[in-house]
Amino acid sequence: MNLGRLLAEFLGTMLLLATVVGSGIMGVALSQGNDGIALLANAAATAGVLYVLIVIFGPVSGAHFNPAVTLAMRIRGEIDTRTAAAYVAVQVLAAIAGVTIAHAMFGQALLQPGTHARTGGSQWLSEGVATFGLLLTILLGARHRPAALPALIAAWIFAAYWFTASTSFANPAVTLARALTQTFAGIRLVDVPAFWLAQIVGALMGIVAASAVGPPRRHP
Amino acid sequence: MNLGRLLAEFLGTMLLLATVVGSGIMGVALSQGNDGIALLANAAATAGVLYVLIVIFGPVSGAHFNPAVTLAMRIRGEIDTRTAAAYVAVQVLAAIAGVTIAHAMFGQALLQPGTHARTGGSQWLSEGVATFGLLLTILLGARHRPAALPALIAAWIFAAYWFTASTSFANPAVTLARALTQTFAGIRLVDVPAFWLAQIVGALMGIVAASAVGPPRRHP
Amino acid sequence: MNLGRLLAEFLGTMLLLATVVGSGIMGVALSQGNDGIALLANAAATAGVLYVLIVIFGPVSGAHFNPAVTLAMRIRGEIDTRTAAAYVAVQVLAAIAGVTIAHAMFGQALLQPGTHARTGGSQWLSEGVATFGLLLTILLGARHRPAALPALIAAWIFAAYWFTASTSFANPAVTLARALTQTFAGIRLVDVPAFWLAQIVGALMGIVAASAVGPPRRHP
Amino acid sequence: MNLGRLLAEFLGTMLLLATVVGSGIMGVALSQGNDGIALLANAAATAGVLYVLIVIFGPVSGAHFNPAVTLAMRIRGEIDTRTAAAYVAVQVLAAIAGVTIAHAMFGQALLQPGTHARTGGSQWLSEGVATFGLLLTILLGARHRPAALPALIAAWIFAAYWFTASTSFANPAVTLARALTQTFAGIRLVDVPAFWLAQIVGALMGIVAASAVGPPRRHP
Repeated sequence: MNLGRLLAEFLGTMLLLATVVGSGIMGVALSQGNDGIALLANAAATAGVLYVLIVIFGPVSGAHFNPAVTLAMRIRGEIDTRTAAAYVAVQVLAAIAGVTIAHAMFGQALLQPGTHARTGGSQWLSEGVATFGLLLTILLGARHRPAALPALIAAWIFAAYWFTASTSFANPAVTLARALTQTFAGIRLVDVPAFWLAQIVGALMGIVAASAVGPPRRHP
Repeated sequence: MNLGRLLAEFLGTMLLLATVVGSGIMGVALSQGNDGIALLANAAATAGVLYVLIVIFGPVSGAHFNPAVTLAMRIRGEIDTRTAAAYVAVQVLAAIAGVTIAHAMFGQALLQPGTHARTGGSQWLSEGVATFGLLLTILLGARHRPAALPALIAAWIFAAYWFTASTSFANPAVTLARALTQTFAGIRLVDVPAFWLAQIVGALMGIVAASAVGPPRRHP
Repeated sequence: MNLGRLLAEFLGTMLLLATVVGSGIMGVALSQGNDGIALLANAAATAGVLYVLIVIFGPVSGAHFNPAVTLAMRIRGEIDTRTAAAYVAVQVLAAIAGVTIAHAMFGQALLQPGTHARTGGSQWLSEGVATFGLLLTILLGARHRPAALPALIAAWIFAAYWFTASTSFANPAVTLARALTQTFAGIRLVDVPAFWLAQIVGALMGIVAASAVGPPRRHP
Repeated sequence: MNLGRLLAEFLGTMLLLATVVGSGIMGVALSQGNDGIALLANAAATAGVLYVLIVIFGPVSGAHFNPAVTLAMRIRGEIDTRTAAAYVAVQVLAAIAGVTIAHAMFGQALLQPGTHARTGGSQWLSEGVATFGLLLTILLGARHRPAALPALIAAWIFAAYWFTASTSFANPAVTLARALTQTFAGIRLVDVPAFWLAQIVGALMGIVAASAVGPPRRHP
C-alpha cells in the first residue's frame, strides 16, 4: 500500500469535515437565528471545498473521502479489500480530526457528544435518496464526463443539502464524526447506525440503477 | 424503443422534481418567513441538480425531462413520434413520483391538491418568456457549445426563477406535478392549462428565433 | 450588414435588461426589506443570464450588449463604424424593450420615469472602476482564455454589483434603460449623462491598461 | 525585471482589495445587521473577482497577489530573489491602493486605522489552516489541473471565508492593508504580525504536505 494515497484520503477527509462543521458554526453565529442563511453558507462552503479537494487529491487516491464510495469501488473491483479497509480506517480518523480542528478554530470543546436528534422514516428515506443520487452521480459521471466529477459531486451535495430533510450526510465517516459536535451539523450517536444503514442501501441501489441505465447512445 | 433511455428520463425527471419541491419545503422551513432566502435556496438547488442530471443522463436519453423540449426535438425531426410520446408519458409519471418522494422525505401527505393561485396575463407572459429563453438556450447552446449545455440550462433556469413573476416553471410535466403539492412550489390544478399554453407558445417562438439568428460568423 | 447579428444583439440585450430589472423587482418583493438578499438575487441572476447570453449569441454578434464594448471594438478596429452605429442603436432599443417586458411580467406600468438618485463623485468613481475592470476582463480574457469569456464577464459583473457603490451599471445602454423604471434597479434620467461619462472614461482607461500589461510570458 | 509583470501584480492586488473591502461595506449597508448575508456577499464577490483576476493576469505575472505565494515560489526556485522582493513591495502598495479606492467609492475617509480585534489562538489556528489549504490548492492544483487554478483558488477562498473563525485572510499583504479600514473587513494593526506568522507557518506546512502527498498515480 502507498502512504501518499492514504495521506491524500486523510487530508481530504479532514478538510472536508473542518469545512462542514466550521461553516455551520460560522453560519449560525452570523445569521441572527435565520437557519436558511446558515444552510446556504454551509452548503456553498461544502460544495466549494469538495470541488477543490476532489481535483487536488483525486489523481492520487481517487478522492473517496467516504466509506460508501470505497465500498462501491470494492464491489466494482476497482480497489482491493486490504486497501479498502485502510481507506475506511483513515477516513474515520480524518473525519474526527476535522471536527476537532473546526472546534479548535472556534474556541470550543474539542469533542462534544452530539445532541441533535435525527431519526425516523423521513430522515432515513432522505439519507437513502441522497446516497443513491451520489452514487449515480459518481458512476455515470465517471462514465460520461470524468473531468467534471469534482464539479458534479459538489453540485449534487449542494442540492441534496437543501432538498432532503436530513441535509444529506450521505457518508458513513462524516455521519460518525458529526456525532462528535453539538453545533449546527451535529447528530446524536444513537441515530448514527440507522443513517449508516440507509446510506448503504441507497448506495447499493445507486450501483444497480447506474448499471440499469446502460451505456451512452446517440441522443434521441 | 430502448428501456435505458426511458429509465434515464424517469430518474432525471423524478430527481428534478424531488429537488424543486423538497428544497422549497426546506427553504420555507428554515427562513423565518423571508421568501427571498427560500427562493435563493430553491433556485440554487434546482440549478445544481439540473447541471448534474443533464451531464449524467444526457448521453443516454438527451436529458429532456420536459415535454416542451421533447416537442421541439420532434418538430426538428431529432426524435420519432412514438419515442416522443413515450418520453412525455414517462416525464409525467416521474414528475409525480418526484413530488411524492419530496413529500415523503419531509413527512407530509404524499399527494396534495395544489392551492397556490398563479393566473393572469403577467404570469402567462412570464411562462412564455421563460420557455422562449429555455429553447433559445438549448438550440443555440447545442449549436455553439454543446459541452456547456448542462451549465447553460442550469444558469438560465436559475436566472428565470428570479426574473419572471411565475418563478419560471417552463415545463408542462413539472407544472402538472407541482399541482400536487401545497408547499412553496405548488400551483392550483385549474391554473395548469393556461401555463401549458404559454409554455408551448414560448417554446415555438424560441424555435423560430433560434432559426432567425442564423449560423455563427466571425466576431465583429 | 447582417440582420442575424443585429437580432442577436437585440435578443441578448433585451433578455439582459429583463433579468436585471425583473430580478430586482422579485428580490425586493420577497426579501422583507432586506436589500442584501435582493442584491444577492439580482447579482446572481444577472451573472447567470450573462453567461448564457454570451455563450449563445457570442459566435453570432460578439455579444457586446453594451455601447462601451462596441466603442472599444471600434477603437481597436475590430468592427466598422457603420456596424458599430447600428449595434448601439439596437442595444438602446433592446434595453428599453427589456425593461418594458420586465414591467409587464410583474404587472407594472410599462415605462416609469426613474426616481432613484445616483449622483456624486463616489458614484462616478464606482462606474469608472466597474467599466475599467470590465474592459480589462474582456480584452485580457480574449487574449489569454477566450473560451472563458462568458464566465469571466459574468463573474466580474457579479463582483462589481457588490464592491462598487453604484452596483455597477458599466453599460451606457443599460443605464439609459434603467432610467425608465422606478423599481430596485432604477436611476433618475438626470443622473444618466454623468454615468455615461464615467463609463466611457473607465472603458478608455481599461483599453490603455490592457495594452500596458503587455503579452503573456512564462510564469515567474 | 519586466514592468508588465509588476503592473499585472499591481492591478490584480488592487482590484482584489477593492473587492474585499468594498463588498464588505456594501454587505453591511444592505443587510439590516444580518452579518450572514454580508459574509455571503463578501465571500462570493471575492471568489468571483479572484477567478477573473487569476485568469487575466496569471499568464503575465503568475497572479500571486500574495507574499506567502511569492515566498513559496521563491522556495521552490520558480522566481529569483530580486523579482520576489519587487513582487512583495508591489503587492503591499497595491493592497493599500485597493483599500483606498474602496473607501473613495463609498465616500469614506481614505485611510482608517483598523479597530476590529482579531487575536488569540483560535484566530491564529484559523489563519494557519486557511493558508495551509491555499498552498495545497495552488501546488497540487498546478500539478494535477493547472487550467483550473483560477476556479480552485476562488473556491478555496470562498469556503475558507466561512469555515475559519478569522474569515481567512491567508495573505500578508491583504492583512496589512485591511489594518487600514474600520469597516467589515478590518483588523487592528497590532494584530497583524501574529496573523503574518500564522500565515507563513501555514504556507510552509502546505509546501511540505504537497510534497508528501507525492505524484499522481492510477486511481484505486
